[in-house]
Amino acid sequence: MSPLVRVQNFTVSADGYGAGTGQSLDRPFGHADPATMMAWAGATASWPNRTDPGGTRGLDDYFTRDFARNIGAEIMGRNKFGPQRGPWEDHEWEGWWGDEPPFHTPVFVLTHHPRPSFTLSDTTFHFLDATPENALEQAFAAADGKDVRIGGGVATVREFLAADLIDTLHIVVTPNELGGGERLWERPEDLLDRFHLEKVPSPSGVVHHLFWRR
Amino acid sequence: MSPLVRVQNFTVSADGYGAGTGQSLDRPFGHADPATMMAWAGATASWPNRTDPGGTRGLDDYFTRDFARNIGAEIMGRNKFGPQRGPWEDHEWEGWWGDEPPFHTPVFVLTHHPRPSFTLSDTTFHFLDATPENALEQAFAAADGKDVRIGGGVATVREFLAADLIDTLHIVVTPNELGGGERLWERPEDLLDRFHLEKVPSPSGVVHHLFWRR
Repeated sequence: MSPLVRVQNFTVSADGYGAGTGQSLDRPFGHADPATMMAWAGATASWPNRTDPGGTRGLDDYFTRDFARNIGAEIMGRNKFGPQRGPWEDHEWEGWWGDEPPFHTPVFVLTHHPRPSFTLSDTTFHFLDATPENALEQAFAAADGKDVRIGGGVATVREFLAADLIDTLHIVVTPNELGGGERLWERPEDLLDRFHLEKVPSPSGVVHHLFWRR
Repeated sequence: MSPLVRVQNFTVSADGYGAGTGQSLDRPFGHADPATMMAWAGATASWPNRTDPGGTRGLDDYFTRDFARNIGAEIMGRNKFGPQRGPWEDHEWEGWWGDEPPFHTPVFVLTHHPRPSFTLSDTTFHFLDATPENALEQAFAAADGKDVRIGGGVATVREFLAADLIDTLHIVVTPNELGGGERLWERPEDLLDRFHLEKVPSPSGVVHHLFWRR
């Protein structure tokens, strides 16, 4: 089976925003609260940051687990790595993802300002000034035959959609509205010209949207 | 995370039957048609017997893939291995599962008539005259830290439920009725004294039932 380019567990508000306005070092999602956005995953047994042995094992748990399944590399936009804009002022700060980043694969950060690669635990961050096509070529070379995840944020997902490079998307739509920020779509049906869509409501209140190429 | 005892992708009719009446060599599911029962999985991209590159990548595909995830051994009843009853008349016939069985792990077949173990491709079949507790102990010893799947049929699932040894169940309820055969339950709510339940309808017409321990 050929490896796929997948968007996975990408969460947007009922009005289509993947992040709020005003991203800063303290507010990676701007005015949006990431704990609220990701509550559907945080409640599950498979949530990697879980500190107690509980958690649900229903539908949302399947999707939480699937984040890592058969992924060999991730591509993300610079704003998912950190809030800096323009040339890096130093290389000391190593991103929002802590000493144990949740990726466990090579990660390719798209930026017009490359900097040296570095490794935190089992995640190596590379920085590329590249087209989507070229970034994907490098990610597949690193992915050892596995799939490549397009990790976001919104601008990066939209860029790969515009280049028609995405095979499947799993988008989680939460019940709350954000009113502004980084918008993925006007409505999910925008993608129906190129993708099949199944909408699967979860008991938790979110609706899982599963897209795959026609 | 402790390994789990899981029932996975186990499919029953709307009236609760996992197999029909009159099991025979030619009719492993008795009067039930396995292609109809398993149509929900057969239509997906992840169906292992797929011969063309198509297939859906929606909800049913997630569950089809999950059959193998983190499974280190399976326990099955003798009637899932073959239609023989009583002492084996010969050891030539090696089960319904062909030269490339879909298990890819050790499989423990519960029977009052043990016979020598044998290997087909990457599946080794062992034959045990054992209690559920003892069979599970042997399966975990072989599972290398992974989960154990209780593979069925109905009598075996019911036996492990009666012994309260099952942590999670994924039961797929199809729209068709069988009217008779091996019955898993009167209704899914029979299990609510011990399990949480999420019912997730699929666009294909089946309803995925996800149970996990209270």
